[in-house]
Amino acid sequence: MKIITISREFGSGGRELGKRLADALGFSYYDKEIISAIAKESNFDEQYVEETLLRGLTPNYTLTFGHTFAFGPDPIMQNELKILNLQQEIIKELAKKGNCVMVGRTSGSILEEDYDPLKIFVYADLASKLDRCRSRADAGEHLTDRELEKKIRQIDEGRARHQRLFTDKKWGARENYHLCINTTGLEIKSIVPAVRDYALTWFDQRS
Amino acid sequence: MKIITISREFGSGGRELGKRLADALGFSYYDKEIISAIAKESNFDEQYVEETLLRGLTPNYTLTFGHTFAFGPDPIMQNELKILNLQQEIIKELAKKGNCVMVGRTSGSILEEDYDPLKIFVYADLASKLDRCRSRADAGEHLTDRELEKKIRQIDEGRARHQRLFTDKKWGARENYHLCINTTGLEIKSIVPAVRDYALTWFDQRS
Repeated sequence: MKIITISREFGSGGRELGKRLADALGFSYYDKEIISAIAKESNFDEQYVEETLLRGLTPNYTLTFGHTFAFGPDPIMQNELKILNLQQEIIKELAKKGNCVMVGRTSGSILEEDYDPLKIFVYADLASKLDRCRSRADAGEHLTDRELEKKIRQIDEGRARHQRLFTDKKWGARENYHLCINTTGLEIKSIVPAVRDYALTWFDQRS
Repeated sequence: MKIITISREFGSGGRELGKRLADALGFSYYDKEIISAIAKESNFDEQYVEETLLRGLTPNYTLTFGHTFAFGPDPIMQNELKILNLQQEIIKELAKKGNCVMVGRTSGSILEEDYDPLKIFVYADLASKLDRCRSRADAGEHLTDRELEKKIRQIDEGRARHQRLFTDKKWGARENYHLCINTTGLEIKSIVPAVRDYALTWFDQRS
């Protein structure tokens, strides 16, 4: 099974890279699909699921006892734990289906025990991320540079916090990834062939 | 001018990657050549030059005032400063000659003001670095794993310290590189074609 997981800074083009890589490799692609599946399974609203995953658990502590989150007495906490458990289950179910690219959702950490996923981190300098956010129609509209910068920082902090729920491997620290790509000044489309070839070599070498 | 600079953890195969990349691209390759040129220019012994560059300046402080190191009154210090100044000059002279790959010597930081070098960082997990060191005939012979681990750490600390003499950009921090490659489990030779293609795309996009 060939699985590529992509973690990325907000605005770095990591999601686009993941989608294009999946297309170039003929792999399945999962991103929002994970949210939808959790929402369906839990009967929670998709937005609530997404916000919960982004925010992490209400009290900010690390839960890495085995692979199942214990259910606390607080009903909000119970919902959050339910969503986190479902996320793990659904990511593992999707991985079983075959070769794929997964973007976000701490999928690299969740899958690395059972598979040997190629873990990629995508990042860029701030100016480049601001540009990319501005060029998207819905994100960052009506925000000043400072507000947008704050938004980027908050989203990335949420991702780092979320990862701490599952693992002690720090989000964004290069030692926890196999390849770290700085997209500053690059059109994502242009780097796909080389990254695809790198991935294929990597799977070949590690098998 | 296309310049690739490679920083690397000791034992990660960064030098081999640099040499092979230069061959694959038809670029000049500089590594020990820089040491030899400094030795020749300064009339110091090559080993003394190499040790000085690895160790950094005797008193451990950061010197980043412009591009020339001031000459202190201490004769040992004067030698060290002479070597550091020569290193900068020689790296800049070599860069003028044409497309090249430079390994180590903080060349990425030294050149980034005048050129836009593709800065690559190469790393690996400890087990992989120990294996690679063991497989080299001269490095790490007769050393226990613990001694070899200490040697790896000391050399990398020397590199980080050396970089602090030239720049406030932290050695090994991914934001200071364009591509970070984890060579764990990989034969260096196998990844050269994809990295070469990535480099060519990168130069094309940034020009």
